[in-house]
Amino acid sequence: MSYEFLKGHGTENDFVLLPDHDGSVHGDLDPARVRALCDRRAGLGGDGVLRVIRTASYAGPDAHDLPDAAEAEWFMDYRNSDGSLSEMCGNGIRVFARHLVDEGLADGSAPIPVATRDGVKVLTLEGDVVTADMGSPFVIGETKVAVGDRWWAAANVDMGNPHAVAFVDDLADAGPLLEAPAHDDATYPHGVNVEFVVRRGAGHVAMRVHERGSGETRSCGTGACAVMVAAALADGLGDPPAEDTAYRVDVPGGTLTVTWTADDRVLLTGPAVVVARGTTSL
Amino acid sequence: MSYEFLKGHGTENDFVLLPDHDGSVHGDLDPARVRALCDRRAGLGGDGVLRVIRTASYAGPDAHDLPDAAEAEWFMDYRNSDGSLSEMCGNGIRVFARHLVDEGLADGSAPIPVATRDGVKVLTLEGDVVTADMGSPFVIGETKVAVGDRWWAAANVDMGNPHAVAFVDDLADAGPLLEAPAHDDATYPHGVNVEFVVRRGAGHVAMRVHERGSGETRSCGTGACAVMVAAALADGLGDPPAEDTAYRVDVPGGTLTVTWTADDRVLLTGPAVVVARGTTSL
Repeated sequence: MSYEFLKGHGTENDFVLLPDHDGSVHGDLDPARVRALCDRRAGLGGDGVLRVIRTASYAGPDAHDLPDAAEAEWFMDYRNSDGSLSEMCGNGIRVFARHLVDEGLADGSAPIPVATRDGVKVLTLEGDVVTADMGSPFVIGETKVAVGDRWWAAANVDMGNPHAVAFVDDLADAGPLLEAPAHDDATYPHGVNVEFVVRRGAGHVAMRVHERGSGETRSCGTGACAVMVAAALADGLGDPPAEDTAYRVDVPGGTLTVTWTADDRVLLTGPAVVVARGTTSL
Repeated sequence: MSYEFLKGHGTENDFVLLPDHDGSVHGDLDPARVRALCDRRAGLGGDGVLRVIRTASYAGPDAHDLPDAAEAEWFMDYRNSDGSLSEMCGNGIRVFARHLVDEGLADGSAPIPVATRDGVKVLTLEGDVVTADMGSPFVIGETKVAVGDRWWAAANVDMGNPHAVAFVDDLADAGPLLEAPAHDDATYPHGVNVEFVVRRGAGHVAMRVHERGSGETRSCGTGACAVMVAAALADGLGDPPAEDTAYRVDVPGGTLTVTWTADDRVLLTGPAVVVARGTTSL
């Protein structure tokens, strides 16, 4: 069976897109197929798969948990590279929205609602960049993380998924990050995404990230949001800030802008590009 | 500019193929484009690029060094992922031949001559597998390689490119291989590909490889050939052996068969698959 794919990325967090508008191409989407597509040597390579399917057409076992099709015509059926289901991906959803507009499946001149397993997200396109409304952060408190015998205090921030944000003197301090940093298992029973952050100037930080289940990656959208929130609070801003506040967040794969609004929304702005399209029988 | 590509691999040594039969699509093929295509996050990803061009149409600065077009209609214009020119690739040329036959550009029922920067190579297809005649090995002598404070004796074998083949007790002994193993700079002034080998049985070995310029890879065709030659000599066979002798060589990305013939040719046999095709503007 041969089927259509596209390949794209947001700040080098990369994805295989599978157009399957009515669900007839991939059915339940076999996890083995997802793994084969994401394999960086034997497949196309990607941090995950974004199936492009109408919300009303999705028939997976969790279909009853999805937002109503009247709220969002399109569903981002996101799969991790290991084949497992995932709720949301801040870089992936920008690529997803870019694709919808490129293909004439959504109107780029207005905000675009996209259904995810974490509810409806609203995307806005402006020139080359796409902004995703990532919802409200939940700042839980302090924790700590360690690599080898070095440890750092870290902010425990939940962006729908768990983060530990550690400010370091130098991004190299955490070493090659071949393994997950040590963390408090009672605080993070399902693991944690760990960000290491340095300040580059006022409202400007740079980060590395170790994603649970993936290792070090070139970008993590929710991680950039967690980092901005932790930095803003460390800078004395309120939770939420008194007025909309934007930070530049440099990741290894590029630059993101994160805006924390006075009404407690976190907006993730950055590039989203589709680099190739074709057919495969993987 | 949008152009055609294919993606394929041989034992998970993977390549972007660029059809450019008369040279009009890519001209001199910009090294920056090669790097962009091979980028595993922002591009398509690959260990190298195989441009598919008629020998007579190639107009690069080294065109006068190529075999005569009358000897081989098609030229494998191989580029490393860093954009540099390369002579040969034992896994890549199998994928190249598979593509020629798939597209009706060559007749798979007869041996196929392919021009490379290392002369004409002859490929033979048989079912799913492709055999490349890799020419004669040159066994130079003994050397040694080291990782950290461990060192091993190694066979110095030239397969058109330099190899150091070290027999180890366990493939894990060489550790994570994040850096090139230490070697004798006087013996290998331009660097060396280092293979670590264990025996799995009679005529059966398994290997890891650190390729100069690439790091540890999932397969290396010339490396598998060098390993077979070193193992055969250690097993007491002649140089060349009295009769055609085949060894199974397991690499991290699959299994290859290497046959050393009585007339001193090394034949590399293994899978070659094309997994996707499409268009890109990278």
